[in-house]
Formats: sequence, structure tokens, C-alpha cells
Amino acid sequence: MERWNDERLSRQIDFLAEADKLKSVLRRTLLMDGSRNENTAEHSWHISLMALLLHEHAPEPKPDLSHVIKLLLVHDLVEIDAGDTFAYDAEGYSDKEEREQAAARRIFGLLPDDQADGIMALWREFEAMETPEAVFAAAVDRLQPLLHNYRTEGFSWKRNGIVRAQVRHRMLPIRQASPKLAAFVEELLQRAVDRGYLADEPPTKEE
Amino acid sequence: MERWNDERLSRQIDFLAEADKLKSVLRRTLLMDGSRNENTAEHSWHISLMALLLHEHAPEPKPDLSHVIKLLLVHDLVEIDAGDTFAYDAEGYSDKEEREQAAARRIFGLLPDDQADGIMALWREFEAMETPEAVFAAAVDRLQPLLHNYRTEGFSWKRNGIVRAQVRHRMLPIRQASPKLAAFVEELLQRAVDRGYLADEPPTKEE
Repeated sequence: MERWNDERLSRQIDFLAEADKLKSVLRRTLLMDGSRNENTAEHSWHISLMALLLHEHAPEPKPDLSHVIKLLLVHDLVEIDAGDTFAYDAEGYSDKEEREQAAARRIFGLLPDDQADGIMALWREFEAMETPEAVFAAAVDRLQPLLHNYRTEGFSWKRNGIVRAQVRHRMLPIRQASPKLAAFVEELLQRAVDRGYLADEPPTKEE
Repeated sequence: MERWNDERLSRQIDFLAEADKLKSVLRRTLLMDGSRNENTAEHSWHISLMALLLHEHAPEPKPDLSHVIKLLLVHDLVEIDAGDTFAYDAEGYSDKEEREQAAARRIFGLLPDDQADGIMALWREFEAMETPEAVFAAAVDRLQPLLHNYRTEGFSWKRNGIVRAQVRHRMLPIRQASPKLAAFVEELLQRAVDRGYLADEPPTKEE
């Protein structure tokens, strides 16, 4: 850590420099123009903007938007150490929690203790998906890659052999967060199947 | 625009897809590891996180953090059309306002009218830098590339022949936003000069 006159600020700056590494964590999703893989930092910005604009579709009592955005800004920082686990990767998910817990301790631990506790609490809240804010945050976090997959004609679905039932299961938090957004997801998935971006059923085995 | 059953949602989704292009707008700043240029979308995430953590250094009465973050999430969207204007590019600045006004009308205009007005108001507030929230947002927007330049041993300063007085001038909103952050900036600039990352004076002409 590089020391500055103010000890507290030194830790904050050190953490913010560490956070820069999230820009180099690549996701499976392509940018909508197909030019390259998306990274987790720009994804975090996109879903925060999405929360700001789609928050109106949450039924009353609405989740606190400001809190939703805080959850979204910090929720993926653990990927700096733990990497991005593909949403449909069962094997990767088996040790995801352990890897991410260790990452959270190290990365948030760079901050002054009280802020480390605060960010840790936000991250745990997001992961537990129990508060209305965490549910809404999870909903936009899942809606965004859906739009990317749709706009890239199912690039990541096709490449990984994903079928509609799997995507629908992954989108469950959206049903919980907003009936209107859930209806949109169903419409989009139907159109994706109709256009051949997404398979409706797993291919039958021929052996 | 692709139409969905819900007309309002169609416009929102269209806007959010347009926003994806901000990930392809490159800034002069390198990532802290020097691996590539930073893009404006990930920059927007980074400064939002920065606002969350450094907000405590604003003196009382503190700016509203949630509003600061909203300003930061939307403030650079106009760059999708207008491009990133380098902070020290006097020529680029001469028509910056005109280019960005046109961009704001087109891009925000994709949204439903009431939301277009809301985002336009946020963008204008950021640009005018008159409210305490806009001043604090401008402060983190300027502090972040300073850290990047410092961590990359003055890459963008050296490449563009920038000297300390120019950087100090650019950092004025930080003095307005937080004496503590302003003191940190002075300390950092002195260290940057001592280490040869940043020139103290313009080179004397030898002709």
C-alpha cells in the first residue's frame, strides 16, 4: 500500500485502485454489437443505469432505489479474485461461495474497518436475495445479459448449449421483482425461440 | 426500434441498448495496469463507487449521495455521439457544448418523455456544476483519472505534454468539494513531480 498523510484515505485509495481490476474481468456476454466480451465493471454500470430507469416497474411498496444501486455497484467486486462464474456452470457454482467469501475478506479488507463492514454487508445482502432491494438488484443483473444475448442472436446461449427452460429458471428473480418485467422476459424468450436464437428443448440423444 | 407489447418498456429497452455503446467510447486514460485505454462506461462505474466511499470527506452539510451517484451514472452518456473530449484539449472544448447538446437530445430522446426530461435535467445539473451534488460529482470525476495517471507513471500527462499547473487548475472542483481531498491532490501532485511523472513547468523554447 502506498502511504499518504491521511491513513484512512490511504486505505480508501488503495481499495479504489484494486477495484480497477474489475475492468479486466471478462464475462461470457458479448457487447451488443458483438465486438468483444463485456467486462464486469462496465456491466456494473449498465445494470445501475438499468435500475434507475426500470425501477418504476417494481410494484408498491417499491424497493429503495438508492440502496438497489449501492448493491449493484459493489456486488461483483469479489470477481477480481474469484472470476466470473458463468450463470449456467453447475461445476463452477459448487465452490463459488467459498471462493467469493475469501475474495470478499481480502478485497473489502483493504478499506478502513467500518467501510469494509459496510461493503461486506451490502455484498451479503445482494447474495442472500432476501430484501426487496436485493431482489430488484438481482432482477436487473439477470435482465441485462438477456438483452445482450438477444441482441447478439443468442451468441452465448448457442455457444454454451443453453435452452429456454434454463434461461427461464435463471430469470425467476424478475418474476419476484416485477410482473411487468417478467411479462417482457416471456415475450422476449418466445421471440428468441421463434427466431432461432434460443433452443426450446435440449437436443434428443441419438445413441 | 424493436417493438414489444409494452410501448413504454420498448422505449426504455431501446435506450438501454443504445447505452451499451458507451462501453466502446475510449478515454485517454489507461487502466492502472497500463494494459489498455479505459472506456467511459467502466469509468462511470468506477467514479460511482468512488463517490460511495469518499463521500464522507465532503464537509457538512453533505451533498446527497444518492443524487451524486445518479449524476455520475448518466453524465457521460452524451459521449456516445460526441466522443470523449480530452480534458486539456482547448480546441475540442470549443464546440463540445454544441456537440453534446445535440447528443443529449437524440440519446435521451429515445426514452419516454418524462424520463427523457429527468435524465436531461440530471445531465444539465452535472454540466452546470452549481449544486453541491454536481460539485462533488465533478470532484470524483476529476480525481479518478488523476489516480490513473499517477499509477501509470504519468502516461497521459507525458504523452500530451501536460504540466502541474494545468492539472491543478483542472482539479479546482475538488477544492470546492472537499478540503481533505484537495490536500490529498496536492500531496499526490508533489509526489508525481518528484518522481518525474509530471513536469512542473512547460519546457522552455529553445528557438
